[in-house]
Amino acid sequence: MATTQSLLDAAVALAQTRRKADLDDLIEELRIPSISTLPERREDCLRNARWLGDRFDAMGMKTQIVDVVEGGLPVVIADWQGRPGKPHLTMYGHYDVQPVDPVDGWKSPPFEPAVHGGELWARGAADNKGNHMACVKAAEHLHAAGGLPINVRFVIEGEEEITGPSLPRYLRAHGADLKTDTVLIWDSGMDEDGRPTLATALRGLLYTELRAKGPAVDLHSGTFGGVAPNPINTLARVIGELKDRHGHVTIPGFYDAVRPPSAEELAAWKKNDARYVQNMRRMTGAKALEGEEDFLAVERTGSRPTLDANGFIGGFTGKGAKTVIPAEASAKVSMRLVPDQDWQAILPAFKRRVSELTTPGVEISVEVIGSAPPVTCGVDHNAARVLRAAYKEAFGSETALIRVGGSIPVAVDFQEAVGAPLVISGITQADSAIHSPNEHLVIDNYHRGIEAVIRFICGLAE
Amino acid sequence: MATTQSLLDAAVALAQTRRKADLDDLIEELRIPSISTLPERREDCLRNARWLGDRFDAMGMKTQIVDVVEGGLPVVIADWQGRPGKPHLTMYGHYDVQPVDPVDGWKSPPFEPAVHGGELWARGAADNKGNHMACVKAAEHLHAAGGLPINVRFVIEGEEEITGPSLPRYLRAHGADLKTDTVLIWDSGMDEDGRPTLATALRGLLYTELRAKGPAVDLHSGTFGGVAPNPINTLARVIGELKDRHGHVTIPGFYDAVRPPSAEELAAWKKNDARYVQNMRRMTGAKALEGEEDFLAVERTGSRPTLDANGFIGGFTGKGAKTVIPAEASAKVSMRLVPDQDWQAILPAFKRRVSELTTPGVEISVEVIGSAPPVTCGVDHNAARVLRAAYKEAFGSETALIRVGGSIPVAVDFQEAVGAPLVISGITQADSAIHSPNEHLVIDNYHRGIEAVIRFICGLAE
Repeated sequence: MATTQSLLDAAVALAQTRRKADLDDLIEELRIPSISTLPERREDCLRNARWLGDRFDAMGMKTQIVDVVEGGLPVVIADWQGRPGKPHLTMYGHYDVQPVDPVDGWKSPPFEPAVHGGELWARGAADNKGNHMACVKAAEHLHAAGGLPINVRFVIEGEEEITGPSLPRYLRAHGADLKTDTVLIWDSGMDEDGRPTLATALRGLLYTELRAKGPAVDLHSGTFGGVAPNPINTLARVIGELKDRHGHVTIPGFYDAVRPPSAEELAAWKKNDARYVQNMRRMTGAKALEGEEDFLAVERTGSRPTLDANGFIGGFTGKGAKTVIPAEASAKVSMRLVPDQDWQAILPAFKRRVSELTTPGVEISVEVIGSAPPVTCGVDHNAARVLRAAYKEAFGSETALIRVGGSIPVAVDFQEAVGAPLVISGITQADSAIHSPNEHLVIDNYHRGIEAVIRFICGLAE
Repeated sequence: MATTQSLLDAAVALAQTRRKADLDDLIEELRIPSISTLPERREDCLRNARWLGDRFDAMGMKTQIVDVVEGGLPVVIADWQGRPGKPHLTMYGHYDVQPVDPVDGWKSPPFEPAVHGGELWARGAADNKGNHMACVKAAEHLHAAGGLPINVRFVIEGEEEITGPSLPRYLRAHGADLKTDTVLIWDSGMDEDGRPTLATALRGLLYTELRAKGPAVDLHSGTFGGVAPNPINTLARVIGELKDRHGHVTIPGFYDAVRPPSAEELAAWKKNDARYVQNMRRMTGAKALEGEEDFLAVERTGSRPTLDANGFIGGFTGKGAKTVIPAEASAKVSMRLVPDQDWQAILPAFKRRVSELTTPGVEISVEVIGSAPPVTCGVDHNAARVLRAAYKEAFGSETALIRVGGSIPVAVDFQEAVGAPLVISGITQADSAIHSPNEHLVIDNYHRGIEAVIRFICGLAE
């Protein structure tokens, strides 16, 4: 068998000579509109799972496409245990993507990948097909160069964007069989300065839907205005008061469990905050940033919890005037939670606050449509050091330690059911517009990312 | 020529023997989906105007279908001046109707009129085809019985539901030619106790659309939550704070010009308020009524101004979860104004208040999409007395003097440009569900209404 170093060199050489094919493969996956939240896209999601399964089969891995939950989307599991005695690495990704609306906002069709000046534009390019394909290609190049130097497992799910139950249930049921030394969750990205990152924490999520019911039927605002309860006004007032104009969430006890940053973290953030604010202003394109004035911007997006309405609909929303007091209105409200907040403790406090803010003529129901606990992960272990070294080689840059504002709900299931150290990272640049129109990936990051994963895998073999 | 009394008797006899034909004629008009706010219904609106014009032609009236505003909907004017020296009556109505959404809420299709237990169900049955057809049928029966005993003019517009400019502009341009002794605005209805009414005031309207813009594009709430301005949260907070939970509008100066009721009005309202509250609870189907606690319910709907959001949309409103902070959100907000509030004075105060409540990262524009000044009208004149007597005969009931919560924007144009006393009334029962699904008219009211107008016209001839 070849030495790890010669294997690495051969695989990196392959990655450098097969760039066009590597990009074409990613483009092929991006053409599959695997939007998990839309029932009419179910067949596309299944097709994407099989497409991935075929790639793993081609490497001689033991591939399964597992239906865990009836009517859910399957988990793709691919195992290769050809190096007994060597470390075992699990690589996580998801093949499902977000809806594309507002579709008018796209400059090229979301499922017809287009290259614009070194960037690949498509829904899923950054979140998460660009990421997991970099891992898949790294494994393929190592396979072609003579065989993977360690044992590996891919776990790629189809319900990340809908916080579905399939993978968590699978992990909890098969934790013992999924023994591994490291879990690489490649569903994150570079920081605002273009450096590779390693996450020390992820925010959790509590996503709810509020339905406000007022009159039994839509009413004329002339005849009834003054006595009819208006579910839009009430729901708007509730949302307006759940978070005040200074970004402070008003749910009693909401901040009680929030773990403050360390002195070191705070010092690093202070140094970078002005540049971070500049980057955020550029990326949001907003006139001004918002949020809790007493906290740094970087702190507010990574280690402070927040609350946002993600959707609101009620009454007449067509063109022109219709003087109606509608029977109902509804809104989606999500909270991003940080260590050590517990969504199950916050939910009843949230419900109480909503009901306290409601007026007697309007009834507001609260339904949970998604949740994920926040996650913390240490970076003082071998896998983290190996990944930082791999990044240094592939990107020529030090790795930034960050707290991630987003949530990767399944991270906590890996942590609790599988138990191995988590390494959370990824290669999408900070302005990749994930979940937005014109999602895109810097193509150079994709190729460097393939090389970084090759180096990471070989590093773990040492 | 026949005496007025014999004419009246003959016309009333015709109304009683031709009930089926009278109902069928109304049903024919109700089949025309004349929704003025929808461009695709323009042809139907024009067809409705011609349909009315044909009826007036058949009575030998001088009929014009006048395009006042390019691209607007025409005004139908029909004149008959065959009784020189006798009084002149102008009768107003509108042939346009509201949109039908939410269409799922209808128990029978809105433009396929259906009779359910003495009620006629269709969009426009109550607002306003049932009303104006009762006037048309009264004229027809008098015509058939031997000729109208006074001079009459019909003015039927097609832009009432969109507060369009055509009729106001026409009235202002032709005020002098439209000399008349009385204007009957039959676009109102019975009170909650089923009594015929005569309005002493109408609320005015200021209808606005607010557009809130935050980030340049939709953003991921994980990556940006904590710093990105959220236009839904801000717009919701603005709407929540424009009117507090006690129904008090917080725009500085908003109540300054409100004319308090007379001692007599207040005494009458107090006597009826408990029953009014009961009726309103039944009609709204709401758990509880809302509004300013220090004022009677009947006062709050008739002589207090109010503010309602009539529509709100922003972000992801489909099924399931999408964690987006959207680039924009918008809402429709209308204010019902009372004598002597002036919408042109309130608009800048409203704009200032909105801008004061906005957060720095969100810009909210305010556009006026409808307005009408409040109207007061005396009831101490001959036409009012004649109508009350006609109602007593036709409905067997005294007439209630009311302040109408709704707005009839063109009333003020009649008042100012034509100058004759306004008589504002109508025959739709209080729970007719105008502007809502399942709009309906009590058919007996229609037939009694025809008789009442016959008696009113003959009464004016004396």
